Amino acid sequence: MPGNTFGTAFRVTTFGESHGPAVGCVIDGCPPGLALDRAALQAALDRRRPGQSRLTTPRDEADQAEILSGLDLDSGRTLGTPIAILVRNQDQRSGSYAGWHRTYRPGHADFGYDAKYGLRAWQGGGRSSARETVARVAAGAVAEQLLRVRFPALRLTAWVERVHDTACGHLDPLAITRDEVDAHPTRCPDAAAAAAMEAAILAAKARGDSLGGHIRLLAQGLPPGLGDPVFDKLDALLAQAFLSLPACKGVEFGAGFAAAGLTGSEHNDRLQWREGRMDSASNRAGGILGGISVGTPIDLRLAFKPTATVLQPQASADDAGNNVELQAKGRHDPCVLPRAVPIVEAMAALVLCDAWLRQRGQVGDPWPGLAGPVASDRDP
Amino acid sequence: MPGNTFGTAFRVTTFGESHGPAVGCVIDGCPPGLALDRAALQAALDRRRPGQSRLTTPRDEADQAEILSGLDLDSGRTLGTPIAILVRNQDQRSGSYAGWHRTYRPGHADFGYDAKYGLRAWQGGGRSSARETVARVAAGAVAEQLLRVRFPALRLTAWVERVHDTACGHLDPLAITRDEVDAHPTRCPDAAAAAAMEAAILAAKARGDSLGGHIRLLAQGLPPGLGDPVFDKLDALLAQAFLSLPACKGVEFGAGFAAAGLTGSEHNDRLQWREGRMDSASNRAGGILGGISVGTPIDLRLAFKPTATVLQPQASADDAGNNVELQAKGRHDPCVLPRAVPIVEAMAALVLCDAWLRQRGQVGDPWPGLAGPVASDRDP
Amino acid sequence: MPGNTFGTAFRVTTFGESHGPAVGCVIDGCPPGLALDRAALQAALDRRRPGQSRLTTPRDEADQAEILSGLDLDSGRTLGTPIAILVRNQDQRSGSYAGWHRTYRPGHADFGYDAKYGLRAWQGGGRSSARETVARVAAGAVAEQLLRVRFPALRLTAWVERVHDTACGHLDPLAITRDEVDAHPTRCPDAAAAAAMEAAILAAKARGDSLGGHIRLLAQGLPPGLGDPVFDKLDALLAQAFLSLPACKGVEFGAGFAAAGLTGSEHNDRLQWREGRMDSASNRAGGILGGISVGTPIDLRLAFKPTATVLQPQASADDAGNNVELQAKGRHDPCVLPRAVPIVEAMAALVLCDAWLRQRGQVGDPWPGLAGPVASDRDP
Amino acid sequence: MPGNTFGTAFRVTTFGESHGPAVGCVIDGCPPGLALDRAALQAALDRRRPGQSRLTTPRDEADQAEILSGLDLDSGRTLGTPIAILVRNQDQRSGSYAGWHRTYRPGHADFGYDAKYGLRAWQGGGRSSARETVARVAAGAVAEQLLRVRFPALRLTAWVERVHDTACGHLDPLAITRDEVDAHPTRCPDAAAAAAMEAAILAAKARGDSLGGHIRLLAQGLPPGLGDPVFDKLDALLAQAFLSLPACKGVEFGAGFAAAGLTGSEHNDRLQWREGRMDSASNRAGGILGGISVGTPIDLRLAFKPTATVLQPQASADDAGNNVELQAKGRHDPCVLPRAVPIVEAMAALVLCDAWLRQRGQVGDPWPGLAGPVASDRDP
Repeated sequence: MPGNTFGTAFRVTTFGESHGPAVGCVIDGCPPGLALDRAALQAALDRRRPGQSRLTTPRDEADQAEILSGLDLDSGRTLGTPIAILVRNQDQRSGSYAGWHRTYRPGHADFGYDAKYGLRAWQGGGRSSARETVARVAAGAVAEQLLRVRFPALRLTAWVERVHDTACGHLDPLAITRDEVDAHPTRCPDAAAAAAMEAAILAAKARGDSLGGHIRLLAQGLPPGLGDPVFDKLDALLAQAFLSLPACKGVEFGAGFAAAGLTGSEHNDRLQWREGRMDSASNRAGGILGGISVGTPIDLRLAFKPTATVLQPQASADDAGNNVELQAKGRHDPCVLPRAVPIVEAMAALVLCDAWLRQRGQVGDPWPGLAGPVASDRDP
Repeated sequence: MPGNTFGTAFRVTTFGESHGPAVGCVIDGCPPGLALDRAALQAALDRRRPGQSRLTTPRDEADQAEILSGLDLDSGRTLGTPIAILVRNQDQRSGSYAGWHRTYRPGHADFGYDAKYGLRAWQGGGRSSARETVARVAAGAVAEQLLRVRFPALRLTAWVERVHDTACGHLDPLAITRDEVDAHPTRCPDAAAAAAMEAAILAAKARGDSLGGHIRLLAQGLPPGLGDPVFDKLDALLAQAFLSLPACKGVEFGAGFAAAGLTGSEHNDRLQWREGRMDSASNRAGGILGGISVGTPIDLRLAFKPTATVLQPQASADDAGNNVELQAKGRHDPCVLPRAVPIVEAMAALVLCDAWLRQRGQVGDPWPGLAGPVASDRDP
Repeated sequence: MPGNTFGTAFRVTTFGESHGPAVGCVIDGCPPGLALDRAALQAALDRRRPGQSRLTTPRDEADQAEILSGLDLDSGRTLGTPIAILVRNQDQRSGSYAGWHRTYRPGHADFGYDAKYGLRAWQGGGRSSARETVARVAAGAVAEQLLRVRFPALRLTAWVERVHDTACGHLDPLAITRDEVDAHPTRCPDAAAAAAMEAAILAAKARGDSLGGHIRLLAQGLPPGLGDPVFDKLDALLAQAFLSLPACKGVEFGAGFAAAGLTGSEHNDRLQWREGRMDSASNRAGGILGGISVGTPIDLRLAFKPTATVLQPQASADDAGNNVELQAKGRHDPCVLPRAVPIVEAMAALVLCDAWLRQRGQVGDPWPGLAGPVASDRDP
Repeated sequence: MPGNTFGTAFRVTTFGESHGPAVGCVIDGCPPGLALDRAALQAALDRRRPGQSRLTTPRDEADQAEILSGLDLDSGRTLGTPIAILVRNQDQRSGSYAGWHRTYRPGHADFGYDAKYGLRAWQGGGRSSARETVARVAAGAVAEQLLRVRFPALRLTAWVERVHDTACGHLDPLAITRDEVDAHPTRCPDAAAAAAMEAAILAAKARGDSLGGHIRLLAQGLPPGLGDPVFDKLDALLAQAFLSLPACKGVEFGAGFAAAGLTGSEHNDRLQWREGRMDSASNRAGGILGGISVGTPIDLRLAFKPTATVLQPQASADDAGNNVELQAKGRHDPCVLPRAVPIVEAMAALVLCDAWLRQRGQVGDPWPGLAGPVASDRDP
């Protein structure tokens, strides 16, 4: 059973292996009439592109998006039909992987793919490569443009909060901008911490090692009422979205794991009407209660493991039943977090856009949550 | 767009509000021929039933499951058709909620439901109540029985690892059994920690307060190859499953958030063939790489916030735009974790059973991963 | 892979075997706020109930619907959560089927179920029985109520157009009402033809034989723009809906099979604006072009085979590899068409309601088609 | 809500407008290990390619398929990951449509698209063009190759049975081969009728008119047990598949609409075991009972309306509320049936392949129906 489609109303199907001809996506369900900003779409791809700095893999990919369908040839607006986006693979150098055909890399999906399918695209990880996320970023850029038309106050910002043992210092999370995040190649908005993170990453790279860390994401400017009980709760679908990213090993919302250290009376965010909107002084729930957004910022944190490819000898196994030693080569990010930032934002945009359209389908738009105190005699 | 169905091949749809006539589920996609053990299904419901101890709500529900369809009347075996399971609500006492019709409880989904739908079942939380999980446990019991037929070595065990500031002492996680977990009402298998947790919960209850904590789950005895790239990765769907539970605020796999403190060379689990099976001495990945199970134990941890209902006055707001003070009453678990244990196991069983049937559909059964070193010339 | 759910935005899952405890459905995705008319829902079930006349099976079923969830206990309005509806089976008399355990009835699904699942509910056809359609009618009644709130001009009427070699005489199809259809037990609105059909059915019944025929359905008062290219075209989903009914063997839209006898210039319906609405003098397309409704009446015809159960000896086969003679007994409709009329209307309502909510999700509501000439600069 | 994906286990998403850059598909769920025959895939596209004869549109499209993903670079076998197939549009000549920007063509989807989406790709019908079926044929070719590996006896053959008032003479439908069908440009295997059809089509073309007709499809060599009750019955999904084709207006199975003229005792196919397989002397049910294949040939007939584009002046309407006269030009098939034959086969292959994988997922493979008399004690 296939698993390459994400979303219910705004559905994205991605395709492509890292060393095949191309990666791409088909977006189905996009509302018609969006004047798609192709430059903004390309800019989103550029933010995740390899080769941006010494912190990222030197693999050189232009990652130029070609839109194959779904746009009005005259106006450039979306037609409501599927939008197919294609990005060719260029700088593939499969040679780097020569000899890995039969060997499973520790920390990688190689063995799992063989165990599952009986064969695998061994060059560069194939479908399990982070290269697949090009397609997600392209789709997420469309989703974000849609959200901005409907919710002009939207602010969707992720940043690197921690790399190995260096943490971002205290900043007001509600005020951080993408420009501030992008100001440093680490995508940590705290300049001092960013410098320390960069040094740590480069030191790890020099040792042939790699580092992991944490990413934080905030989504502001969205109405209450997003999310679909009971299995498609907003936090549940966000969790699926992020855990589907390569190297992501955990997610927490609001106080998250630390909520265990609080009592209920300490943890509960007190509700209060303020200027016709529901608000709360604290946001320990991370903006979601019972799986439905409450209008306060959606606040979450992700754990990324250190990059699996390390340029040191490692004990491993091959597909013939032998235990072997592996010496990796190839071009890899010593720390995926800087480039993961736009990917995380893209996945969030996909979930949020889908939640909006699902809500519009079932309840109409505007829905009760957009109009202050509810009116229970509203017709369907 | 509806969100009350979970799973792709083994699909469960749940229904019911906490104070309506009933809760229940329809399971669609169950393989035919399973000699369903109704007593085991009822036993699973009894494990999550309220009123088991002083640690749980005194709401008294028999939670007797009635199976309405899907079984052969002669043999009791599953027919391959939908299995509908009904559990009547009995001890509802909506009176406890009188006066809450208009007031939103902090930490609850009340406001979100009104913002989303324009009305809500205000009695006891309606659809957002943990009572909905009755249906999940019933469905999970069927899924687990199926898994046991196919994978007799399956061990699926969750336990309470932490309550507030009391943590379970070190035990060999691979050896913990459900009997050990159920030996104490806290469902913590470390007797000393369990006693401290119980005391903490009762003290919080006496103060009208509540506690949260962490639950750990291990699934052993499963083959490699479960999970469907790229969006329906095994960890992604497990994350959705758990974050869809009331009060769950985080999930991490293997080393999880702590993976950030390790380098790649420290974190990578080295692969080795052992007795014809792939194994690894460490399990920092938690048994899943690239979204596909690798055969080592699936190991994860969940964060649960403290119960939102606290019997202390709280500032809140009503549906008419007023800021008010709320004094909750009613019967609630001062700590949801003990009763969440069987629910967590049920959700894991649903995901794993679904992953197995999806794999069987696309690749056949047995699949490559069950036969040692792979044969890449296997036909579809 | 399960197949017991229908619809995308308005999703219905049915369950139940003919001789099991119950049949029923779960409706997921119903918009909130509908003041559900329970009496109208029950009236819909009464229209398909057995025992209405000498033309139908004497099986006596009260078919009382119990609504288990999804309604506000105070107002009776839909909550937006799943609506579960239960109908108990009562007059089952499995004894009539004694001896059929091992024998496959010609024209029935018995052999197919065994071939598929390896076992079957042999009593009365189990899941393949037309009794399953009780659940469809209940769900369709909810869908129709929703449609009426949104499209007050909706007229959705099916009738028996032919039984064996007796055809309904010419009536203005646009003017036929449900009351006229229900005026005669055959559900043919032409009184003379109805009498002849009744006589033919009773004569067939007396011979232990059965008859088939054609049903026509018209849906008026709906806007253009319903239906989702390319696979979920309105006619494609209607075709799936009707062919999923027991005994239905064909569907045609507008001129249908007879369209082959026309040239393009004869067949094309000429478009014309009339009072701000698009119209056409002819309706050979049956109201749907390119899979999208155009605003003219949706007009279709269904073929139903004669009831498979005939009370005459028939050559058949058993599950042990023997060819045997079968002498059926039991209570059956000698002609399913009169009772199929409300079922056909229900399936149409499900498709149309789903198409409306899908359209509202992707495009918003009102959509361009409701506002006369289109405005291509509409935002998403 | 999007509708551009078809299938459950073998899922195909198509994209592309007739005059945009490309059309194509993504196939998700293809089993791994298939040694894909690219030449056979291209040959399938060549069968539907325009410009094959004087009977088809002179639009000249090479329709070369480029496979973008999903194949092992070494072996050419399917990886189990999404297979994306791209076909560039080349000979588009939008100029032919100049002036139609604002005018709705009778018999076309133009008005429906505007009514639905508020804008449309007016050049050549955009998404509603039969050009979209290129993608279906590509996907169907993959599905058919898969089916042939699993069911080597498969014979899947469609042919033109009628054009306007010329019908194919009597031939043994079970014996007709694709070579016989392809021997004449009409794709009618009866040479005399084919000649008459060709003359009629050319005469209509000369008049600027168009013709419709009937297509028959037979699928032989498949086991019993395919199809998923209750909504995803094999005939229901075939009906959806075919009615989703441009110009298709009806479908009937076996005796179809003519079944109304038979009594039950005349219509029922008597079952008999023959050489360990279930068989029946007649096949009035068309190989499907209760929505499940019974092992006899699947036999169905489709109605196609005459091509909507006629080169004669027609009354019509524009998007500004005016009633106008339209004079079409452009290149069109005067009769779509010859080129529809491979498209019909492709849709059938998609449905059958999906049904097989769904069956394998729920019941395993081989399933009971493949092993003669059933064994009801089979485990799940």
